[in-house]
Amino acid sequence: MKTEKHKRSDYIDFSDFKLSFYDMDIYGHMSNINYFKFVDIAVHLYLTRDSGFNMSTGSHIGVIVNSNCDYLAEVSWPDSETIDVGIRVNRLGNSSVEYAGAVFESGAKEASTQVRFTHVWLNRQTRKPETIPADLRASMERILIKQN
Amino acid sequence: MKTEKHKRSDYIDFSDFKLSFYDMDIYGHMSNINYFKFVDIAVHLYLTRDSGFNMSTGSHIGVIVNSNCDYLAEVSWPDSETIDVGIRVNRLGNSSVEYAGAVFESGAKEASTQVRFTHVWLNRQTRKPETIPADLRASMERILIKQN
Amino acid sequence: MKTEKHKRSDYIDFSDFKLSFYDMDIYGHMSNINYFKFVDIAVHLYLTRDSGFNMSTGSHIGVIVNSNCDYLAEVSWPDSETIDVGIRVNRLGNSSVEYAGAVFESGAKEASTQVRFTHVWLNRQTRKPETIPADLRASMERILIKQN
Amino acid sequence: MKTEKHKRSDYIDFSDFKLSFYDMDIYGHMSNINYFKFVDIAVHLYLTRDSGFNMSTGSHIGVIVNSNCDYLAEVSWPDSETIDVGIRVNRLGNSSVEYAGAVFESGAKEASTQVRFTHVWLNRQTRKPETIPADLRASMERILIKQN
Repeated sequence: MKTEKHKRSDYIDFSDFKLSFYDMDIYGHMSNINYFKFVDIAVHLYLTRDSGFNMSTGSHIGVIVNSNCDYLAEVSWPDSETIDVGIRVNRLGNSSVEYAGAVFESGAKEASTQVRFTHVWLNRQTRKPETIPADLRASMERILIKQN
Repeated sequence: MKTEKHKRSDYIDFSDFKLSFYDMDIYGHMSNINYFKFVDIAVHLYLTRDSGFNMSTGSHIGVIVNSNCDYLAEVSWPDSETIDVGIRVNRLGNSSVEYAGAVFESGAKEASTQVRFTHVWLNRQTRKPETIPADLRASMERILIKQN
Repeated sequence: MKTEKHKRSDYIDFSDFKLSFYDMDIYGHMSNINYFKFVDIAVHLYLTRDSGFNMSTGSHIGVIVNSNCDYLAEVSWPDSETIDVGIRVNRLGNSSVEYAGAVFESGAKEASTQVRFTHVWLNRQTRKPETIPADLRASMERILIKQN
Repeated sequence: MKTEKHKRSDYIDFSDFKLSFYDMDIYGHMSNINYFKFVDIAVHLYLTRDSGFNMSTGSHIGVIVNSNCDYLAEVSWPDSETIDVGIRVNRLGNSSVEYAGAVFESGAKEASTQVRFTHVWLNRQTRKPETIPADLRASMERILIKQN
């Protein structure tokens, strides 16, 4: 079963990143862990910027319980000097949220890698799941995809 | 649906790794990408040691097309000074192979994180999928799990 | 002996980078290795952009023989969302070159960290030092500081 | 001026580490930042093990103010499956300490890379330099080199 390649219009918020040789693996392509890393960063940059969430001091922390990556095409530096990372929220529950993200080479229409991961939000002190705070939830809703 | 926690006996080959503060994230727990990284390393250490495979010079390269991680419990340094990583092969095809791996805290019976990832093996020059070379396949078969 | 803090006007070429929690250490500040990493990246981005140098295929490779970092002030994300990295060439020999670089918080007048490192340029095949190729040397000369 | 190559007998405490392809750079050799990283880890593993120091909860934190690396020979995986890292204390002041460390290929008599770095110890709350706590100082004295 082929994974369907996503387009930029499948995502809602975008961040761009400079690549370097530090992001490449022994085969000269982007290291597999870096695709996930860039999507993880893009999600946290969005939440930080949009909701004022602070990972160091916030009352709640998001713990990843599952992640999944489909690698559709390789990305290499310096062929690609920058990448665009698109993100969205797939599902928003009481204390958990599933994000999707994708890495696009600069100018590319189709994604090179597609990522999904699920955060459970914990009270920083008790480390127990709690309702996602209202300001974080509002930011998540702004990038929640409408599914039919 | 709860993910079932695996035991050490669910895996066949093991490598142990020292942890350090470089492996921890801003919350003081192992960075999510490092669970995958340690399993990826354990698979390649096994293939290198068992089959003589050389990532820099071998005729074929393994490209990851999908990866999936279930995070079941957090790991922290220096509470955990070392981890044990167990690996196995789930499915072995003509040019592709699915591995499973798990991170165990030293002495722990149940896995902290469970990973699956699929390699497609390409000819290094043509970058087209080819039959997995016999020496690599023999190593993969030695850690292939018998499923009923 | 106090290290003198450099200003932006002490450097010639600049690159900016987004920071994230992946760049932070267990104390919540930029990991020490990342200051060096960002200067190393800025030097290679400049050489790649200005001279057409390609690390994967070029006839020569630059091997670092010494590096030195003075850490003058801590940098934290998300207090600093981006950094500016300034670079210059301090000394240009036949087969070796000393670079200097500094990390500036966005908007800051004085450097947070000052780095020096020396490349010896080797023939990629023989791994012996050779005269720096003319196109690379021309790029280095364009950022060579005039010292009195 | 040639840097003198150190021997194992120049160092006092040793840690060994498994290498992997994740430690290699685009040229197939150990990434420059990883030599420093392994020495930094070895120092903190020693302090943690010997003095009970805890980076996450201790009353004081060590902030690096200067680091210096001399790269004498390249290290590659899988040619080198493991490295040994030797450390010592060069100078021990009231609130600061200079460490030296070196990376040895398994079985090698001479160092591949030699590192020095200086910690200033701060009160975790005030972030001001203070006298190094007695238990940490005792551990540092046990690896202090006698210089004539």
